[in-house]
Amino acid sequence: MPNNESLDFAGASCPIPISEYPCVLMAHGGGGKLSQHMIRKMFLSQFSSDLLQPLHDGAMFSIDGTRLAFSTDSYVISPIFFPGGTIGELAVNGTVNDLAMCGAAPLYLSAGFILEEGLPMDDLWRIVVSMQRAATRAGISLVTGDTKVVDRGKGDKIFINTSGIGRIAAGIDIHPRRAKPGDKIILSGRIAEHGIAIMSVREGLQFQTELTSDCAPLNGLVQVMLSVCPDIHVLRDPTRGGVASVLNEIAGEARVGMNIHQERIPLSEDVRGACELLGLDPLYVANEGKLLAFVPPEKADRVLMAMRQHEFGTHAVIIGDVTNDHPGIVTMRTTIGGTRVVDMISGEQLPRIC
Amino acid sequence: MPNNESLDFAGASCPIPISEYPCVLMAHGGGGKLSQHMIRKMFLSQFSSDLLQPLHDGAMFSIDGTRLAFSTDSYVISPIFFPGGTIGELAVNGTVNDLAMCGAAPLYLSAGFILEEGLPMDDLWRIVVSMQRAATRAGISLVTGDTKVVDRGKGDKIFINTSGIGRIAAGIDIHPRRAKPGDKIILSGRIAEHGIAIMSVREGLQFQTELTSDCAPLNGLVQVMLSVCPDIHVLRDPTRGGVASVLNEIAGEARVGMNIHQERIPLSEDVRGACELLGLDPLYVANEGKLLAFVPPEKADRVLMAMRQHEFGTHAVIIGDVTNDHPGIVTMRTTIGGTRVVDMISGEQLPRIC
Repeated sequence: MPNNESLDFAGASCPIPISEYPCVLMAHGGGGKLSQHMIRKMFLSQFSSDLLQPLHDGAMFSIDGTRLAFSTDSYVISPIFFPGGTIGELAVNGTVNDLAMCGAAPLYLSAGFILEEGLPMDDLWRIVVSMQRAATRAGISLVTGDTKVVDRGKGDKIFINTSGIGRIAAGIDIHPRRAKPGDKIILSGRIAEHGIAIMSVREGLQFQTELTSDCAPLNGLVQVMLSVCPDIHVLRDPTRGGVASVLNEIAGEARVGMNIHQERIPLSEDVRGACELLGLDPLYVANEGKLLAFVPPEKADRVLMAMRQHEFGTHAVIIGDVTNDHPGIVTMRTTIGGTRVVDMISGEQLPRIC
Repeated sequence: MPNNESLDFAGASCPIPISEYPCVLMAHGGGGKLSQHMIRKMFLSQFSSDLLQPLHDGAMFSIDGTRLAFSTDSYVISPIFFPGGTIGELAVNGTVNDLAMCGAAPLYLSAGFILEEGLPMDDLWRIVVSMQRAATRAGISLVTGDTKVVDRGKGDKIFINTSGIGRIAAGIDIHPRRAKPGDKIILSGRIAEHGIAIMSVREGLQFQTELTSDCAPLNGLVQVMLSVCPDIHVLRDPTRGGVASVLNEIAGEARVGMNIHQERIPLSEDVRGACELLGLDPLYVANEGKLLAFVPPEKADRVLMAMRQHEFGTHAVIIGDVTNDHPGIVTMRTTIGGTRVVDMISGEQLPRIC
């Protein structure tokens, strides 16, 4: 290693015990406890800023009085073409949704491509076309981009980063820590469809009907919800780590408890069957077109009715509520009548799901 | 391939002839003609937007009257630690500079990490620390991030995407197409230092003095320049493809000619020697802490004097001017008295330089 001022890290030793985790593991990218641990210890200790909200889907700030949301995500999903979408559509919808979960109207997107040498040009083309289609559907513009190429064997076909900017209207204040005892927890539709679609392709499983990803832009649904209830407390899309991990994150951030009801959680028969076959708990499986909303109880029915009128909210239901009891803990009344704690995922169930 | 609505690309066939380039080549990421060709044919044909300015370093737009610049870049440099910097510092400074080249004051940055399983945790830590140091030095905040992990052999240690938002002050209008006949072309300092530092590490070369990358944030220098001349026409940092490629891009975009003088181009003796040894033309080698400015002739001396007072502009010089002759062509008066055309790089000279 050359002598180098910028490599002088005297006084700053790695906050993750080397004896415990000397190297990055797949599980550090799984969206569960290990991910959280690395993000908190490694990134938050350095990038300290009031704006850096690790448990929110984006940063929110004002420039000259204009309230903006800003979010970034890299997409490394494998396979890059899957039932219900492409890595390109996922990259557009994923960042659109992160902005929407801040209560923002998404406006502009960037796209950064890391291509592996040897990627068929026609695959790239189909991905680019699918991105433009997704952008049009979501009503946003791709305005800036970057392309890098890495040698064969140093990447995996294509990775895409999208970052986005959205505008937050006056009066909107959505944040995980605003979950309040009494709030109703609304889930917008059937869960686990994205993760199970990916797994079924990887495992070569066949079902009666094809399992397709729920990959979709949620900004339109959010606008409808905000129009009937500007005071939505929390919005989150349960991607990596699924519904269970997201509820746990919010419970921890807001220091509240939650009770949910297993029999209310919408799940298609095919996805239920696939989960049993694969030994997966659908509560931990990734979604790419669903959201969780925490709303004041007196507004819950209005929000629910509005959601059910929207193409991406037809199966919306109230799955539970927020409580003063057991802060930081999510419990679930099971279909057989018992109650169990729903913990956060520890490592990761499905690598490279997004 | 499963039957899938989103994979139906009827009517849209790949605009890059498959017979010519069936697959992505390293050269498609080199910043030269092949990169340009792919970007124009592939991305611009789809992502058509007035805001998408392929030859600018970022997009510029207004939200509620606030003028903003937005830029993205992915960094895949190898090695990740090099004389004069780390991939993390490069990622911060690179996007800060892209915003500065739009005439914007950089404010907020995102960071998206793609980690290869097995990356030593301590390497990640040193990169994170170096990013925070670079952010502090540039006066910007890292406000949102994302971490993904890919399996061993499907990435290369670490790739970082940074995207950034900056504010553009009233009266600033910087754009490649504003290069005008008569403009003076100012180069902020010695060239080719980044590319040669990387190559010397890769090739194990030893020199009298260590060759270090010029990786630096240029937003402070740009502010100084704009304070003495708000009417700067063009700013660009000559990264991939070097000074020659950037001048060619601007000449093409503005449909003007340029004449530069070889003997005026600042170059250290060590870098000159390394270039000769490696058979590289310094005009095509990447810089990460230099800029080119096109300024009205009557303001050139004032801008130059202001630049020389700044730590990153001490060697600033006027290297040539813009002409009505030979639009789209850059010519150079050589040290031996001849004149030659300086073409754009075709493929790429140094892979994974940023």
